[in-house]
This record gives sequence, structure tokens and C-alpha cells, in this order.
Amino acid sequence: MILYLPGLRDHFSGINLICIDEHVPLMRPFRDLIPFEKARQIVLDNIRPVMRMESVPLTRAAGRVLAEDIRSEVAVPPFSRAAEDGYAVRAEDTYGAGQYAPKELKIVGRINTGEGKELFISEGEAVEVATGALIPEGADAVVRVEDTERDGEVLRVYRPVHPGFDIAPAGEDIKKGEVVLKEGALLTPARVGALAAIGVAEVKVYSRPRVAILPSGDELVRPGSKLERGKIYDVNSYTLASVVEQNGGEAVLLDYVRDEYEDIESKLLKALEYDVVVFSGGSSVGERDLLVDVVSKHGEIKFHGVQIKPGKPTWFALIGDVAVFGMPGFPTSCLNDAYQFLVPALRRMAHLPMPVERVVQRKMARRITSTLGRMQFFTVRIDDEYAYPAYKTSGAITSLANSDGYIVIPATSDLVEKDEVVEVHLWG
Amino acid sequence: MILYLPGLRDHFSGINLICIDEHVPLMRPFRDLIPFEKARQIVLDNIRPVMRMESVPLTRAAGRVLAEDIRSEVAVPPFSRAAEDGYAVRAEDTYGAGQYAPKELKIVGRINTGEGKELFISEGEAVEVATGALIPEGADAVVRVEDTERDGEVLRVYRPVHPGFDIAPAGEDIKKGEVVLKEGALLTPARVGALAAIGVAEVKVYSRPRVAILPSGDELVRPGSKLERGKIYDVNSYTLASVVEQNGGEAVLLDYVRDEYEDIESKLLKALEYDVVVFSGGSSVGERDLLVDVVSKHGEIKFHGVQIKPGKPTWFALIGDVAVFGMPGFPTSCLNDAYQFLVPALRRMAHLPMPVERVVQRKMARRITSTLGRMQFFTVRIDDEYAYPAYKTSGAITSLANSDGYIVIPATSDLVEKDEVVEVHLWG
Repeated sequence: MILYLPGLRDHFSGINLICIDEHVPLMRPFRDLIPFEKARQIVLDNIRPVMRMESVPLTRAAGRVLAEDIRSEVAVPPFSRAAEDGYAVRAEDTYGAGQYAPKELKIVGRINTGEGKELFISEGEAVEVATGALIPEGADAVVRVEDTERDGEVLRVYRPVHPGFDIAPAGEDIKKGEVVLKEGALLTPARVGALAAIGVAEVKVYSRPRVAILPSGDELVRPGSKLERGKIYDVNSYTLASVVEQNGGEAVLLDYVRDEYEDIESKLLKALEYDVVVFSGGSSVGERDLLVDVVSKHGEIKFHGVQIKPGKPTWFALIGDVAVFGMPGFPTSCLNDAYQFLVPALRRMAHLPMPVERVVQRKMARRITSTLGRMQFFTVRIDDEYAYPAYKTSGAITSLANSDGYIVIPATSDLVEKDEVVEVHLWG
Repeated sequence: MILYLPGLRDHFSGINLICIDEHVPLMRPFRDLIPFEKARQIVLDNIRPVMRMESVPLTRAAGRVLAEDIRSEVAVPPFSRAAEDGYAVRAEDTYGAGQYAPKELKIVGRINTGEGKELFISEGEAVEVATGALIPEGADAVVRVEDTERDGEVLRVYRPVHPGFDIAPAGEDIKKGEVVLKEGALLTPARVGALAAIGVAEVKVYSRPRVAILPSGDELVRPGSKLERGKIYDVNSYTLASVVEQNGGEAVLLDYVRDEYEDIESKLLKALEYDVVVFSGGSSVGERDLLVDVVSKHGEIKFHGVQIKPGKPTWFALIGDVAVFGMPGFPTSCLNDAYQFLVPALRRMAHLPMPVERVVQRKMARRITSTLGRMQFFTVRIDDEYAYPAYKTSGAITSLANSDGYIVIPATSDLVEKDEVVEVHLWG
């Protein structure tokens, strides 16, 4: 039994006072229960961005992260284009034109958008052009159609233009040889557009971190199968997979781990081909906590036990380069762990920015109590004015499914008063 | 030439003063240029949520929207379970127990988690149970292992428990027959977990709105193909597809539309099998604006011309139930239109909540000018203090690709001063 004396603990930060009743049978206490921020930092310090790459077509590139600098092999636009419907002219031929003193030019042709016609204009000549059409050789400006009047092949220009007027010169947007996007760029729709503009049809992006999900427990069966006496449907595979897929990862659901040393070991060793392994369940202070033993044998447990509620028995380990998480079996505890630890880890591995937290302020609808010595994540529903407790029991998935977000009650507090203003962290 | 007299227009809201120089050749003016908010409202008023459904496996359900109420056919948990490792007992057998006066019980068996063993306990008996194990018949509480001492088959209980203690009763989380989730619920990871908990392996969700994308223009070629003289790479198919995919839709890239009446008409009619059709390009005031003619013949143009920059020539039409958008050909104009009009429309069609806008305040790094009479979306890059213009030209995709967001300059303003505080809308 582990007891915290909060006053003392606050004094001797980081030191946990442990008191074990003499009649308690031998068991593994959480000797190194650490604060939440420290645990999260340990996770972030121990994971590495995935450097594998893959090619994806442009239509599947949005939301991915560039794995290479992209240099343009073309200019954009690739040629000087008309910015408006009108006439390509030599600007100097229009100087002095006015509403009552038009300049007359001779129309020598027309270039439609998309045409590659080779035309040339000399002094006193004009070529009709559509918006986006190639500017013929010799022309250096476009007179808009509304500033002209046409009479057969005679064009009257009512307004002078300067050189370059209404022409988008070749390379105005992107120069040939220019680095358009750099390695590490998140491909927003606009950046996908920049790739399209330079003719890139496929692009190298970082591969998604692959996450093996291995719930532990002899009681678990897959949704859709028959529920025999003593069994329950597995929840954690599906909540974890959803979180993984929504945060740049690729979830792989592996077979459930039985509560036996050999089974855990063989499944763990197979799972090491993935970038991340997430166990859930099997982590208690009881005699049957075999997971931690197996993982310790093959790698290093970086922490075991965090000053949070839910999520106290959470552990994190490295086996070679593989990040291994041990999350509680209770669905809400496991999912809260996923949001607090797995999401930042995954996003860093996927080269993605950290998620943007949305926080709103509400008054607490009723008094709630918490546990001194553990930071509590407490789920709430909200309306325009109040936050209402959504918490049922730590095992209840409906605590989360029916909530809009959560409030954080610090480890040093055991109470939130009715009408106290709280910050609600909304689910993503 | 269309001139707005802003002072007057603001007075006679909705009335646009049009002044056409007498020398301008006959063309189609934007007679009904409308304010931005009105245009967006017209779009939202004219689209319908997609009511088609499809079944998806639970691993692909996150982010989708439920198309049916989900009633549970099981209780969760399906049986009364031990909430801790310990011993299932009759609570009354522990009354009076204390640290120096333990109650002695006889251990008659053990139930592991996941086992369906049929055990029964009588007065003075206990069954060892693991967390999550079935509570045997006759027991009504669990004594935690740390409150006991075991000596062979003799159990000494050092702390009394009340009936129900450390038992999660059947149906505590979800009752059999209970409606767990309602039609229209966005499937967050927690809600996917609630479905898993009741054994649902596949779920009916609303189908994604299918969006046909048809850029118009003889100059367009696909990225990856050879760029002939006079041609440019198509950008809009890829920016639009990215926006569609990121907002709950399914993008389908159709063949480019040539600037010919028959080609437009045949491609439009084929595209009507989709929920939304997006044209880009081909919408100018020039003689070759055939798109609007064809669309008008088959349906109703709801607006044509919006008081925004970029995006003035935007139109929107209904052909039967199909929403048809006409967006400018310039990549930045088209993409801005997609964010302002297509995203809210798509999300409503997909039964998704409107996107959460992230707005930050910055000082403008330099003075910028705008156009009176049109609300301007002006792209900016930001650092911790300033917003810097990212705008290059209206055709430049890099204006957007290199920006962090945009500021809105109202139609009644033609200037933002240096150091003026602006609200920057960050890209999603």
C-alpha cells in the first residue's frame, strides 16, 4: 500500500514517502512515481522521428510531411502570360492614348489560352490575347479589352499602358531551380498546389510511424464475436487505433497477449518490427504483473508509475529504438494515456506539429473531489455556462464517450468548488 | 467597366452602382455582386446533408458520422466484475473485522480474469478473484488483497467491506437496450470505444459527399506530364481535392473542360451523378464565359459575383439536388473560394461540425492597401509579433503556400496601417 503525505511531498519535491503495512504480502510498489510533465518529457526525449520515406501521388499527399527539398525544374508561369483578356502590344505604341485621342494599332492575330502559336509583333501591331495566353514575341504589355475598341483589324486603344502592364512574366510565381518547399514541410492544400504548379505528380514523404497495439488479458474478445461467460469486448484496440490514425500513425491490431510469460515474450519480440508498441492492461501492483518483467529483460523501463489519475500504473520503455508503452487496461485510463503520452510522441515521430489544444472556460456545475498527490484528468460535458461531471467510473467508456473534454485538477488540490471557473480542454 | 462608389453602396446596401463607359463592347457584367456573408448563406441554404449510408469496420470509423441510433444488445460490463485483485466475499462476513481482529474465511477457489467458472460461495467462504474476474454467485463484495493475509486455505480479512464494495456491477457502464449513441454523432475515439464495448464490429455511417472537380481551360495539363508551349500545370484539381479530403468529402478528378459549349455541357451532365460539382476557371466577364450559360440552361444560378477579393467572379448554382460551384481559375482565388464556400458546404453535407477557426492577433509589419467595396482575404506570414504580407500576385500559388493564414480587410476599408493590430485566421 502506498501512502502519500501531500504536505511533505510538496516540500521534498520528487520524493515519495512509502508506507507498507506489515501484513501486506510482498508485491511490487511503484517506487518511482513521477510527475506528469516529467513523464511526458521522458517520452519525448526517448523517441526519434521516423526517417523512412515513401512516395505518394499528389492526390494523397495532403497532411503528409515532405521528406526532401523540392526544387522546381520549371518556371511558374513557364512563359509570360496575359493577366487579362485584351491585346498584347508594345507599350510605347500606346503612350499618349486618351479617351478622346485613341492610338490605332493593327491586329495581326489572336492567341487563345493554351495555344503555343509562334507570333511576333512589330511597331504599330497588336495580337488579341485571352487571359493566360502566351504573350507573343515583341509585345511587352497588355491593353485590357475594356480600354479598346475594335473595328475589323483596326484596334483603337483609349488608355496608355507601361511596359509589363497586365503581363505575368515567366517565373513570377516560382523561378526555375528555386527550392519551392523544404524537407519537413507539412503538406497543406496550398503546398500541394505548389507541387502541382511545378509539375510534380508524386512526392517523397516520411512514412507514418507504425504502431502495434497489443491489449493484454485473457478476458478480451473482438467486437462482432460471441461473448462467452467471463469475457468482455476489447475496447482499447479500437480507441488506440482511432487515436493513432488521427495523429499521423498507422495502427496494427495484433493478437491479444495472454497473462503468461512466454506468450508475452514471444508477442513482444514479434512486435518489435514496429516503431511503437502499445500494451494495455496487465500493469498492476499484483502478483501477475508479468509485462514489466518481460520488457525489463529486453530493454529499459524509463518510468513506471505517474502521479496522475487515471493512469497511475503507466510505464514507458525503450527496447532498441522501439518505444514501448504500458497503459492501464481500463478503457478511460488507457484512452487518457493515449491522449497525454502517445499523441505527442506519435506526432513528433511523424514530423507533425503538436496538436492545437482548444481550451474554454466554464463554471463547475457542482463540487467535485480529487486525490491529493495525483494530477487528475476529469471528464466533463459543457453547455454555454457550466461544466458538468461526465465521470462515471474509471472503467466506464461512456465517461469519455459522453464528454466534451476534461479539466485538470492539480496534484496539490483535492477539491473543485461549485461555481469555480475551470479550464476545459476540449477533445480534438 | 464596373465601378463601385463605396459611400453610396454602403448607404443603399445591396444596390451596386454600375457605370459602363460607352466605348466598352457588349459583355456580361456582374449585375448581382453580393456581400460575402450573403453568398455563404445562400450556399448553406441550398445544400442538403447527404443521406446515403455505408457500413464501415470499427477500425475505419473514427471521424465518420453515425447514420443510425445504436442500441446496446449487451450490458457493459456483461457480468459483475471484480474492480481490484482480492477475494470475493459476502460483505456481512467481514463486518467487525479490524487490524487486530481479523475475520477468518475459507478460500474455496479462484477465478481468473476471462474465466467463466461457475462457483458459489456460502457463509464464511471466499473466492480469490483477479481484477476484472467474474464475481461468483453468493458474493456481494471484494476485499482487496492488501487488506488480507492468506495462510493455505485460510483467509484473514483485516478490513470490513460493505455490499457492492469493489464490484463493478453488470450494466454499470451501459445497460442492455440502452441507446449508446445517436444518429448524427461524430465518432471520436471514445465513441468508437463505446461501440467496441457493446460488441459492434461494423457501423452504419453517412457516406461522404462525392465532389467532382472539373477545371476548365485548354491550357491545363496534369502534373507529371510534358509541358508543351503555351500550357501550364493544373493546380486547382489538387488543391481542391486536398481541401475536399480534409473536410469529409471524396474528391473525384474529372477530365478538363474545354472552352466549348458542347464539351462543357456533356461533361457537366456526366458530373451530375456526384453530390457537388466544382468548376474552376472559365468564369470571366469576357466573351468566352460559356460555363454560366450552360449551367443556367440546366439549373438555377443562385448568385454570380461576390464582393470579395480574390473571388469576385464566383458563382453558385443548383441543378436538381446537385450543388455546382464556379470558382476562379487563378490558384489562390480558387483555393480561397474553397476555404470560404466549399468547406462549410461540404461539412454540412457530411454532417460534420463547422471547422474551428484559429485566430491570433499580430501587428501588421507594413502598410497594405486594399480595394474599397470588396472584402479582401490577404495572406500573411507571422512571427511572434508581426504579420508580414505573403501576397505575391493573385495567380501565385506561393502566396498561399508560404503563408500561415490570412487577414480580412473589410469592404469599407482600403488601408491597413503599419503596426495596426490585425486578426490572423490561421490555416487549419
